[in-house]
Amino acid sequence: MNPPFERIAIVGVGLIGSSLLRVFRREGVARTLVAADASAAVRARVVDLGLADAVHATAGDAADGADLVILCTPVGTFEALGAEVGPRLAPGAILSDAGSVKAAAVRALAPHVPPHAHLVPAHPVAGTENSGPDSGFATLFEGRWCILTPEEGTDAAAVAKVAALWRRIGSNVETMDPGHHDKVLAITSHLPHLIAYTIVGTATDLEETTKSEVIKFSAGGFRDFTRIAASDPIMWRDIFLANREAVLEMAQRLTEDLTMLQRAIRWGEGETLEALFRRTRDIRRGVIDAKQA
Amino acid sequence: MNPPFERIAIVGVGLIGSSLLRVFRREGVARTLVAADASAAVRARVVDLGLADAVHATAGDAADGADLVILCTPVGTFEALGAEVGPRLAPGAILSDAGSVKAAAVRALAPHVPPHAHLVPAHPVAGTENSGPDSGFATLFEGRWCILTPEEGTDAAAVAKVAALWRRIGSNVETMDPGHHDKVLAITSHLPHLIAYTIVGTATDLEETTKSEVIKFSAGGFRDFTRIAASDPIMWRDIFLANREAVLEMAQRLTEDLTMLQRAIRWGEGETLEALFRRTRDIRRGVIDAKQA
Repeated sequence: MNPPFERIAIVGVGLIGSSLLRVFRREGVARTLVAADASAAVRARVVDLGLADAVHATAGDAADGADLVILCTPVGTFEALGAEVGPRLAPGAILSDAGSVKAAAVRALAPHVPPHAHLVPAHPVAGTENSGPDSGFATLFEGRWCILTPEEGTDAAAVAKVAALWRRIGSNVETMDPGHHDKVLAITSHLPHLIAYTIVGTATDLEETTKSEVIKFSAGGFRDFTRIAASDPIMWRDIFLANREAVLEMAQRLTEDLTMLQRAIRWGEGETLEALFRRTRDIRRGVIDAKQA
Repeated sequence: MNPPFERIAIVGVGLIGSSLLRVFRREGVARTLVAADASAAVRARVVDLGLADAVHATAGDAADGADLVILCTPVGTFEALGAEVGPRLAPGAILSDAGSVKAAAVRALAPHVPPHAHLVPAHPVAGTENSGPDSGFATLFEGRWCILTPEEGTDAAAVAKVAALWRRIGSNVETMDPGHHDKVLAITSHLPHLIAYTIVGTATDLEETTKSEVIKFSAGGFRDFTRIAASDPIMWRDIFLANREAVLEMAQRLTEDLTMLQRAIRWGEGETLEALFRRTRDIRRGVIDAKQA
């Protein structure tokens, strides 16, 4: 049986890119797997790890002759990469990505995709706090959701082909509007990261509590925040800037809710606290039931 | 060799109490292990699981004849339990606890401890989001810190005996002032829990994003917060009320830092974000190096 793709190009070999290369190889979904990365050190690791059949320094060279190009770089690079890759997309080729913000991704990429090619943006809701080509693994996407956000009028066959690829590597696939995606992810992913970065930052600023004490007694909850706050700095800088409106809206709601809880603590309103804590416990049961725990 | 204790009484058989019973049994640190729990259902489980040699409905009955009594109930119960247990403490007996707030614990318990007995407050910085007698396990305290906060002038032999007990079950032991403990834990444990409860609450209030979408796409960071926000509601209500000042101070600092980040996002100040995100990454390395990850 022929593989579904002739040549897949992965642009950016970090956690996501290297995981895709690994699982694409395992599943044999392309006759040829090529990679591109701007970092010579990363390219050398790709060769050492045998992750791709060819490694290029530029996205344009990797895109030549590919029937699927997936951008796995921070969202802030998409404008320049779109301009570079767009003109080199072959007839029928699909440009996709793995960016965590979708409206900005569409805005950056769509103008560069020629009429003979297709844009099918994707966001695999999966990850770890680790970065780089060594951090990836073939099972990263198993049981996780991949959200596709094609514009209306996008070639249905191209969308179906991308959806089938993600299902093949173990993901569930959902399609939604880019703006709705950005609102949902603002609360389920971007705000948690913003808060984790904030609280770890707050802790490091303390004069009285030394850094070593904070680390020593981190098992009481703090260590989970340090894990999240160890995520790639550039990737997350770009996410917050690209999803500004939705993130600020969610941060504002959080601040209001936190203020209410602070007030309840100050005035000793135990019932208010307990009622919320019971409600949040139910959500955890939902996460476990949905096998996303 | 004689066990170090004749009779240890565990009051409250939840995650911590049942873990202590399990590891105390494994290590043979007492000739007799007794448990007390106000819930008939919990007492029945203690019998079914064979966690103790005897099970009582009241702390007072369990304390009779014990040379060590450890309160493993929410901090809000300490005042009443102190009044009940104090008069029944035998000469030389030690009253201890596992509460997450220490100044309030000392205030509640110290007045009830007769001159012939000793108060050695303890806080094992270990736990999971699960509750109840079935959730405990013997290795919970291994490699974690236990903080002792005895008042000045406490019998040194009693403190050493409690410290040796925690070391025996795998913990590292540190001694500090109750007030300092409460400040350190406010940032490393209490604030993370408060924020996790808040953010999960914020998510459940959204009109646009349904609860099912929030759960479905929780793998982007949110699920870690749902885990923390699944912790015991009564225990955490009591912690926030008992450590009010330190928690409010830390929440205020967090709010200021979050406001600064919101402003950086609004004005597109990428360098501010990136600089913080690199700093927080270093803290994660510290947590990993300290084997608390």
